[in-house]
Amino acid sequence: MDALPAKKPSESATEMVQIVLPSDANALGAAFGGSVMGWIDICAAVAAQRHSRQLVVTASMDDLHFHAPIKVGWTVTLRARVVAAFTSSMEVGVTVHAENIQTGERTLTTSALLTFVALDKDGKKLPVPPLAPETDAERKAAAEAVTRRSERLARKDRGRTWVDLAHR
Amino acid sequence: MDALPAKKPSESATEMVQIVLPSDANALGAAFGGSVMGWIDICAAVAAQRHSRQLVVTASMDDLHFHAPIKVGWTVTLRARVVAAFTSSMEVGVTVHAENIQTGERTLTTSALLTFVALDKDGKKLPVPPLAPETDAERKAAAEAVTRRSERLARKDRGRTWVDLAHR
Amino acid sequence: MDALPAKKPSESATEMVQIVLPSDANALGAAFGGSVMGWIDICAAVAAQRHSRQLVVTASMDDLHFHAPIKVGWTVTLRARVVAAFTSSMEVGVTVHAENIQTGERTLTTSALLTFVALDKDGKKLPVPPLAPETDAERKAAAEAVTRRSERLARKDRGRTWVDLAHR
Amino acid sequence: MDALPAKKPSESATEMVQIVLPSDANALGAAFGGSVMGWIDICAAVAAQRHSRQLVVTASMDDLHFHAPIKVGWTVTLRARVVAAFTSSMEVGVTVHAENIQTGERTLTTSALLTFVALDKDGKKLPVPPLAPETDAERKAAAEAVTRRSERLARKDRGRTWVDLAHR
Amino acid sequence: MDALPAKKPSESATEMVQIVLPSDANALGAAFGGSVMGWIDICAAVAAQRHSRQLVVTASMDDLHFHAPIKVGWTVTLRARVVAAFTSSMEVGVTVHAENIQTGERTLTTSALLTFVALDKDGKKLPVPPLAPETDAERKAAAEAVTRRSERLARKDRGRTWVDLAHR
Amino acid sequence: MDALPAKKPSESATEMVQIVLPSDANALGAAFGGSVMGWIDICAAVAAQRHSRQLVVTASMDDLHFHAPIKVGWTVTLRARVVAAFTSSMEVGVTVHAENIQTGERTLTTSALLTFVALDKDGKKLPVPPLAPETDAERKAAAEAVTRRSERLARKDRGRTWVDLAHR
Repeated sequence: MDALPAKKPSESATEMVQIVLPSDANALGAAFGGSVMGWIDICAAVAAQRHSRQLVVTASMDDLHFHAPIKVGWTVTLRARVVAAFTSSMEVGVTVHAENIQTGERTLTTSALLTFVALDKDGKKLPVPPLAPETDAERKAAAEAVTRRSERLARKDRGRTWVDLAHR
Repeated sequence: MDALPAKKPSESATEMVQIVLPSDANALGAAFGGSVMGWIDICAAVAAQRHSRQLVVTASMDDLHFHAPIKVGWTVTLRARVVAAFTSSMEVGVTVHAENIQTGERTLTTSALLTFVALDKDGKKLPVPPLAPETDAERKAAAEAVTRRSERLARKDRGRTWVDLAHR
Repeated sequence: MDALPAKKPSESATEMVQIVLPSDANALGAAFGGSVMGWIDICAAVAAQRHSRQLVVTASMDDLHFHAPIKVGWTVTLRARVVAAFTSSMEVGVTVHAENIQTGERTLTTSALLTFVALDKDGKKLPVPPLAPETDAERKAAAEAVTRRSERLARKDRGRTWVDLAHR
Repeated sequence: MDALPAKKPSESATEMVQIVLPSDANALGAAFGGSVMGWIDICAAVAAQRHSRQLVVTASMDDLHFHAPIKVGWTVTLRARVVAAFTSSMEVGVTVHAENIQTGERTLTTSALLTFVALDKDGKKLPVPPLAPETDAERKAAAEAVTRRSERLARKDRGRTWVDLAHR
Repeated sequence: MDALPAKKPSESATEMVQIVLPSDANALGAAFGGSVMGWIDICAAVAAQRHSRQLVVTASMDDLHFHAPIKVGWTVTLRARVVAAFTSSMEVGVTVHAENIQTGERTLTTSALLTFVALDKDGKKLPVPPLAPETDAERKAAAEAVTRRSERLARKDRGRTWVDLAHR
Repeated sequence: MDALPAKKPSESATEMVQIVLPSDANALGAAFGGSVMGWIDICAAVAAQRHSRQLVVTASMDDLHFHAPIKVGWTVTLRARVVAAFTSSMEVGVTVHAENIQTGERTLTTSALLTFVALDKDGKKLPVPPLAPETDAERKAAAEAVTRRSERLARKDRGRTWVDLAHR
């Protein structure tokens, strides 16, 4: 198979607005973690599809941080783009910003890194195009992703003690 | 304030069964990542509440791995328990096992680590009880959590390049 | 066909925690009846599947009582187990307890009895394993289920006046 | 307090159509029990509100029977009306009919009896108007409801063995 | 193909009650536009199915007006019926009335006109029966629908400037 | 009160991606009208909020056309922007494009025009900023909106025959 042509990070840029409705809220009047995770997963999956031009499934999520609460009635904007591409997986970064209706000011509330793999109809992994970063910041982010990936796999290998506890 | 009495890991053990319905499915007939994340977040939050006896909110999620697809119609069992307790946060481990209806055999499909903080009505952080592991495996898991925590904070400090990219 | 080996009631024991979110609430701030019924139906169906090792469908529900309101923000624990097994149907009992976050105390809020039948892929009824109660209480519960079943069928035969009214 | 004026059964008649969407389906392509129960609970609650002119909450459900499966894509019609009124509670009957799109023919698929109590803003029980049946069938249905009510309360008193089992 | 026999408007009359739950609400405590539109679409689709006896899909919606806010906890009644039938499409009118629980008084809160086409399994358009209005008001409504239809098609032809703007 | 400073159409531009999940599908495997309407309503409301910097509620919807079916598994992109601003209302245009995963090609599937009003906490209408179109196309679209508005109000005044029919 010929090498797939490289894609720029901006080609996978994806945006999603949401209004936080009462049905997304926890008992403290802030967006329930699971609702935000659901939006993040969809927004990131579209970025991975735009890069790979294939159906994708979530393989992992890391470094999801809730930096600030998101209140009911607020508007949030999610932005996702492919940060790094490996042989058969992609790392996608997602940010969630709350938008102050009166001032238009945006505050970072949540960020997360997800990895996706591209699959064919039978669920077999497909190769994904390489990433061609254009700016210094994009190159730095892709290089950091290589470190993050080896750390992620190392954490997966060692220290499964807690999983074994629950497995019984 | 007096020190809170320590709690055993087993005191926060939490279980949740779910049947994967068509409304939880992605286009490949497997459970949509966001649905599973929503179940994980609730099951883990209850474990953190049972440990802290306070309202809790999700602070972060790490090492979420989808080890195997979960098909529509399957029964899954989520299990969560507090792995380690710090001054004002708790690490909770969650596993998701699919259950073969015909044989009863269970397969690990998803695992994740979440941290929660306990809040009072005004959203101010509250201290949480220390954890008193009872078995060698529980002690090992709690010790590993200390390492994971410093790695998590280190990752948060460095390498925010991708967040800055999206922030603009 | 050989007789299916008997199963103990404890083999079908099923547990599900839920946090009552604003999206589950009625206008009085308590869990909407339909949300609780949906959780009960899933938890009971898993118990029936664990007993029969087959796909099951709900055949009936009786004696669903809301003993106390369930408020938004509360944690509830559902527990289901097979109470009695007949030729091709199972009676499953479900309890819902609310859990006081501050004290850990549990209060019975809802209970219900459901019957399920096991079906093959074509929707044909399958035989289910007999139940082998182990304790006096389990034997008493199974015996009471026989009485409940004949009363349930008797109510179904007579007194359909109200259904006929609506049928027109 | 003066006696409330009696209401006819037809004054509480309530109707709801639904199309069974894939999000309502179980793994066998039929409507999931919990979805149907949710529709039944809302339709019956509106009937109880039309009779009592107060906010109502579900107190119990009995004799819910799934007479026939309801397939995805089908149209169903729910009909509810108050069958009997007691001092502070009402019995409401609900039927669910599936409608064959090509022929318009309607088949009874589900029926259920629910009781509701009317509450004020503080959750205190309110008296409800008496029922004034107009036809022989309505009078017969109301009389049968009296028998059903005493049987229901008798079942609630005795035979809680299975609840006690789960309560531990 | 023989001409399909005409149907009266009353033969497609469809009714749906809903209780506005907190999960349907926007941040102002009123029913979220999207929830009401979802109910309208289902209620209207059933009316179009009852007229055509075929599966139908929404082709367009016009003149949706929110005349008054619908508050959480209110009961609403939707009513739909076919207003006019063309060769392969039907215009359906829907009204939403809020019902004051204490007085039973009904207020028009929302109205909308939708068009549906009937499709076979392969998604090919099917002819629909003509409408046979019975009263003067029904005849007037059907005549107005002819004018509305040509205005609708004229608006679709001209003035797509805003769509072209967004298309880029 | 001083005049509010004018805003450019591009300042209200809003984008939302969605993946069409099985839970959004009708019985023909295409996105259910109500799901798409819900996404349109949210995306348009955010555009109106970005223009007005106030909470907004949907006042009307017109010219919603489903140009082509949207299949389960497809990715769609919604784009909304304010087309015209009046004293206390805004017209917002929304387009929905389906995105072919393999080729990246986008097809217009749905378009709609909505009007919103800005409200204060007590539900009283607030003035909204004027629109300052920058391009010829934006000026043409705003001019067309004036015509559409008078036609919309004219349609609302005359021809309420069908609403009166349903009102009874």
